[in-house]
Amino acid sequence: MSRSHTVDYDLSDDDENVHHVWDNSIDPVLTVEPGEVVRFECRDAVDGQVGPDSTAEEFGNVSFDPVHPLTGPVAVEGAEPGDVLEVELLGFEHKGWGYTGFMPGEMGLGLLPEHFEEPGYYAWELEDGVAEFVNGIEVPIDCFPGTIGNAPAEDGEHDTLPPRDVGGNMDVKHLTTGSTVYLPVEVEGARFSTGDCHAAQGDGEVCVTGIEAPMIVTARFDVRTDVDIEQPQFESDHPYTPTGRDEPMYATTGIAPDLMDATKKAVLHMIDHLEAERDLTRAEAYILCSAAVDLKVSEVVDAPNWTVTAYVAGSLFPE
Amino acid sequence: MSRSHTVDYDLSDDDENVHHVWDNSIDPVLTVEPGEVVRFECRDAVDGQVGPDSTAEEFGNVSFDPVHPLTGPVAVEGAEPGDVLEVELLGFEHKGWGYTGFMPGEMGLGLLPEHFEEPGYYAWELEDGVAEFVNGIEVPIDCFPGTIGNAPAEDGEHDTLPPRDVGGNMDVKHLTTGSTVYLPVEVEGARFSTGDCHAAQGDGEVCVTGIEAPMIVTARFDVRTDVDIEQPQFESDHPYTPTGRDEPMYATTGIAPDLMDATKKAVLHMIDHLEAERDLTRAEAYILCSAAVDLKVSEVVDAPNWTVTAYVAGSLFPE
Repeated sequence: MSRSHTVDYDLSDDDENVHHVWDNSIDPVLTVEPGEVVRFECRDAVDGQVGPDSTAEEFGNVSFDPVHPLTGPVAVEGAEPGDVLEVELLGFEHKGWGYTGFMPGEMGLGLLPEHFEEPGYYAWELEDGVAEFVNGIEVPIDCFPGTIGNAPAEDGEHDTLPPRDVGGNMDVKHLTTGSTVYLPVEVEGARFSTGDCHAAQGDGEVCVTGIEAPMIVTARFDVRTDVDIEQPQFESDHPYTPTGRDEPMYATTGIAPDLMDATKKAVLHMIDHLEAERDLTRAEAYILCSAAVDLKVSEVVDAPNWTVTAYVAGSLFPE
Repeated sequence: MSRSHTVDYDLSDDDENVHHVWDNSIDPVLTVEPGEVVRFECRDAVDGQVGPDSTAEEFGNVSFDPVHPLTGPVAVEGAEPGDVLEVELLGFEHKGWGYTGFMPGEMGLGLLPEHFEEPGYYAWELEDGVAEFVNGIEVPIDCFPGTIGNAPAEDGEHDTLPPRDVGGNMDVKHLTTGSTVYLPVEVEGARFSTGDCHAAQGDGEVCVTGIEAPMIVTARFDVRTDVDIEQPQFESDHPYTPTGRDEPMYATTGIAPDLMDATKKAVLHMIDHLEAERDLTRAEAYILCSAAVDLKVSEVVDAPNWTVTAYVAGSLFPE
């Protein structure tokens, strides 16, 4: 899906346009006027270390040093600290493939590393709006940038893994075509970068990867001085049905006195369900959760136990 | 909305059918066969202490002793510990009104008691599928039981506020007509009760009340011995669009190293937004968040910061 637009600038994913840390001392590779449109060619999250034919073992051995390669920074004329950068997401073009993987044990990444002893990896073909999984399961594609943000005010190099007040690796699956993101500006020009694109992801991104895919992101920039926000906000011209279809849902709850524990329980219960009812291995179920199962905070007020709910859409499965 | 069904039993909300704690020693008021349908008349969450004309001060002074009045328990023939009670939700009938309120400070209830010094209260008229708020805001009605569960195995009286493995006060807004809930059975007969009905609620129920309303719940029971679950699960024949409409959304993020802090930030940012852009007082915004703003866990893997997102549907607001 793409919105009508002209393109003012194309940024390739060549080394001179790519950086791997947030650092406000990185010089802009481009300066644009408010209203201008940029196409960002973005590498995948692990910077080409795996491909469509890689194995779980290979994914388990990737280096995290190049995570995440980001394209930019782009300076926007007139953006000053305290302003808000408006980023209208106009379209995404994937390159026909993506992957979802997880690493167990010591790496400690993802929601449930202690529950998986071996790494997992699945390479998806992306075509006709869906990504095919095992057992006839189809995950609808709706592309978004996992990482989208401005340079932070704090000097020095900052890891790209955590999101911050200026945005970054927020992994909000709703930042699809037709959404407009508002990012706090902390340095002159904002110094915007994006990357780590996903062809799909469940809310939570529980195994630490969505459907990671090299992709081109097209965005229009503007500077807002009339709003005051502390952390990113966004609006979207469409609702957040899980697949955009009218469909049945199955859900598991996680009930616990700690919100993270409730989240883990909801996902573990969904993995149990997918293993029992959908004939998936636990590794496949974990990957499907990360790619397509949505987490909601059902209640955070019924002390001392909170409820988190994990939802899977019925339309993912063959009839 | 109601599904086609015959009713086998009617349970009134008279004292003999109502209890205020979970306790497996409470004798069933009714025993049904699998497949039978019961209509439960349910009192509101604070058991009639407030009404359509009550004030915020009156709500601030309600006693929590009678919270929550639950209708039941109903024993289901053949249900044994380790089984699963299947509860098909067939329909809901409200009585034309409901309320949303919050208590500040010492009561400590709700997500943000430290941010509000005075209690808040709003009585809603419920008609034609919507509940009208201030400023022309309309919240779509989609009724569900805030509390739905079985008696716990652990002897003694248990507070109804927290949900548990057997269900209870889960406040899952998706348990609407057309949903089927699976509840672990811990005692013979399951001893099912329900109540604390909501005409609408945002995921999170952040101010501690949805649109609380006396209501009649109609449900069909079955006993499942072929599934094994640790905490409640459910399925639904419909997706979870916030309002069932195709509409724009506005969202705020909360980014923090603790998931509860991220949740609080997302809601505080939404209150800021509603105050600035929708001309609501902070108390009105808090109430609207609890009645209609949905919380999603966007990511729980980008250590050390997690992202929670609060969504408000554009269709709530007048054009």
